[in-house]
Amino acid sequence: MIFATDPTVSMPSSEEISSLLSEKKYSEIKALTEVIAPPDMAEIFEDISEREQILLFRLLSKEQAAETFVEMDKDLQFRLISSFSDSEISSIISELYLDDTVDIIEEMPATVVKRILKSTTKEQRDAINEVLRYPKNSAGSIMTTEYVRLRINMTVADALTHIRRVAQEKETIYTSYVTDSDRHLLGIVTAKRLLVSDPELPISEIMETNVVSVNTTDDREEVAAKFERYGFLSVPVVDKEQRLVGIITFDDALVVIKEESEEDFAKMAAVTPAEAPYLKTTVGELFRSRIPWLLILMLSATVSSSILSGFESALPAVLVLFVPMLMGTGGNSGGQSSVTVIRGISRGEILFSDILRVFWKELRVGILCAVTLAGATFVKVEVVERLILGNSEVTLAVALTVSLALALTIIVAKIIGAVLPLLACKIGLDPAVMASPLITTLVDAVSLLLYFAVASGVLGV
Amino acid sequence: MIFATDPTVSMPSSEEISSLLSEKKYSEIKALTEVIAPPDMAEIFEDISEREQILLFRLLSKEQAAETFVEMDKDLQFRLISSFSDSEISSIISELYLDDTVDIIEEMPATVVKRILKSTTKEQRDAINEVLRYPKNSAGSIMTTEYVRLRINMTVADALTHIRRVAQEKETIYTSYVTDSDRHLLGIVTAKRLLVSDPELPISEIMETNVVSVNTTDDREEVAAKFERYGFLSVPVVDKEQRLVGIITFDDALVVIKEESEEDFAKMAAVTPAEAPYLKTTVGELFRSRIPWLLILMLSATVSSSILSGFESALPAVLVLFVPMLMGTGGNSGGQSSVTVIRGISRGEILFSDILRVFWKELRVGILCAVTLAGATFVKVEVVERLILGNSEVTLAVALTVSLALALTIIVAKIIGAVLPLLACKIGLDPAVMASPLITTLVDAVSLLLYFAVASGVLGV
Repeated sequence: MIFATDPTVSMPSSEEISSLLSEKKYSEIKALTEVIAPPDMAEIFEDISEREQILLFRLLSKEQAAETFVEMDKDLQFRLISSFSDSEISSIISELYLDDTVDIIEEMPATVVKRILKSTTKEQRDAINEVLRYPKNSAGSIMTTEYVRLRINMTVADALTHIRRVAQEKETIYTSYVTDSDRHLLGIVTAKRLLVSDPELPISEIMETNVVSVNTTDDREEVAAKFERYGFLSVPVVDKEQRLVGIITFDDALVVIKEESEEDFAKMAAVTPAEAPYLKTTVGELFRSRIPWLLILMLSATVSSSILSGFESALPAVLVLFVPMLMGTGGNSGGQSSVTVIRGISRGEILFSDILRVFWKELRVGILCAVTLAGATFVKVEVVERLILGNSEVTLAVALTVSLALALTIIVAKIIGAVLPLLACKIGLDPAVMASPLITTLVDAVSLLLYFAVASGVLGV
Repeated sequence: MIFATDPTVSMPSSEEISSLLSEKKYSEIKALTEVIAPPDMAEIFEDISEREQILLFRLLSKEQAAETFVEMDKDLQFRLISSFSDSEISSIISELYLDDTVDIIEEMPATVVKRILKSTTKEQRDAINEVLRYPKNSAGSIMTTEYVRLRINMTVADALTHIRRVAQEKETIYTSYVTDSDRHLLGIVTAKRLLVSDPELPISEIMETNVVSVNTTDDREEVAAKFERYGFLSVPVVDKEQRLVGIITFDDALVVIKEESEEDFAKMAAVTPAEAPYLKTTVGELFRSRIPWLLILMLSATVSSSILSGFESALPAVLVLFVPMLMGTGGNSGGQSSVTVIRGISRGEILFSDILRVFWKELRVGILCAVTLAGATFVKVEVVERLILGNSEVTLAVALTVSLALALTIIVAKIIGAVLPLLACKIGLDPAVMASPLITTLVDAVSLLLYFAVASGVLGV
């Protein structure tokens, strides 16, 4: 859906709307609200009082009311719907596209769902139940059944007449789907193609017969990846028997792309993905999304402490000074690899079967990074600390120990960081769980063990 | 552009294509390649020899050749274009949409650009130069000038006739733009609206007059955010005088969304964003994208080492054991806040003016996390280590010191993590530079200082 707001006209603020409401200037409000795009309208609703919300909602045109309702957060939707009469609910639902109705139903408590379903026709209810029965995050769960279906024996002129007739109820008319009488998908035809073709031609001659479709049970992330790759406006959803059951449009794919990438960002920062924007998330919600991860990571860090305490007495004090640098660099090296590989997995560019290629690549990159950083560290420790600053504790053996341990840590960290997400994926875990924070904690322990092993080898401690 | 591949027909592999080429079965190849979507076709090209690439490219239909060319990486484009005659170049360029031509020109060396421009008409050249003159990452630089423009005095029937006539050369016909004779944008009208309207109606009566448009100099990231928010198919680009100069279509916005979020992921992992997928990036490229950050972070970690060395002799050995846990938890706490805030900034949800709200929110979340984690640590150290394990070095004062230092570190880390990205943004730096790795390094130093301060207060060291 295309909606429009004139950027040169300044948007009315929620304060202006409030004061117009209290002055009962309803016709002025009606005129104002007509040109506000639904996402902006929904934002205004969030800033006014509950009483004003109900009043303002009733002033909106039927279409604007429905489209704004879709954009609201679920608390506001619940509050409004609770204040509606059954006929008001029915009037909104009749304006909504099916997939939006399903989204709302999925968020509402059972009593509200009952009221919504009561206000739909038998046909709508069947379509809603069709979409609802697909598992969360599947292609079926985000599809709509409101697409244009053409019969194979239609001409171009027939098709255009049919499209004109049904356009209002369809989510898109820019791609039509041609099926046989059993709903098997035979081909697609774009509105552009229809417009430029001879009206007398049969559809079968101008349709594309080689169609990228998705299955109802496909993961919605895979579906979104297809939109990104091919630039589709919409994609047909078929069942196991290749029968057309719905379509997914690009705007819904866009929502999936956004949600999935925000989820990955959250996991990389070791927080539970939030549903609302930061400023609208309460302190309690932020706390709950962060504390489990901090606790887990803190407890796993005690492993490092135990290792440190096990070796500390044996280790010259000067070596302890390099522990933060060693652990930090190890964590960063592993984090670089893990985030890169996790993104590759989630974009479908890296598969588990690539694990050996990934290992071999990271081994080489790791060696290059190790040589560079260990070299830099050796020069810094040996030249700056020992020769220039004359720190007598820093012997050549110390410089060697630190550099060698650093080199090994970097190589191991890169391999752990790259391979663990792939292994997680293989055993059915979300690879993003293996993001920087967990990798860092693991690499910390490994780097300490390597440090002590090298120290005992070189210094004989 | 919608293209289609039948998922039930298995895609020909590059090996099959290779062997068909060597057997000179050209008509079979032609039939095969006709149904392959351009992104898939481009992938086949990458897996065959240079000689085969040139041969196969000449076998493609004109349209397929052009669309596949757009999907290739720039090295392959360069190799192919170098083998082309001027007339072959001209035949491909004439099939391309303007924005794709501009993308190619931007990646090619000057000699190739000259050959491409030579093969274009004066009109095309002017349009290309129009787009090329806008700064990188601006709306102007990703727009196309191939849109459908309608005159305000047309009827619906006139408009449909016009659209039918020009459809082939336009990137989209699903939204048309209505302008006056000076190209000032007056409104938009969708193909759907045209199809369902009375053919005799004037355009001016059915067009939407309140149009969301973007300016040529707007950041492309802002433009992409508008597509995400409003679900547009295309958006008009106007100059300072509100004259229509081009449009941006959703597929180009999708590319921007993808690139910008991958860039943020890369920065959060402290790597320079890669241009190609992981498996296609060479070891040298990976090394170069990672080593500068590792070096910078390693050098900044020496700050922590210096702090540690300054206080180490004064500190009881038992306190050193808690350093990794303290630094790790501080880093994770700060990382959680920084990634959350950075995403909020890049999605336009958090502005610099929100800095006090962010500070206040993080302070409260920080205190909650601090109390929980410090409490857990106190119990663990006091009960498990001292009472159960009977570690005599761990006194009540040590448990208190560690817990208090941890609490302070968490609060400070959360605030640093949330506020620094906003400050970076304010002074014109990319907030993502303040992502986890840098925050972690900073928090490491701060947590050590706090630890020693608390230790000297509680233990009197």
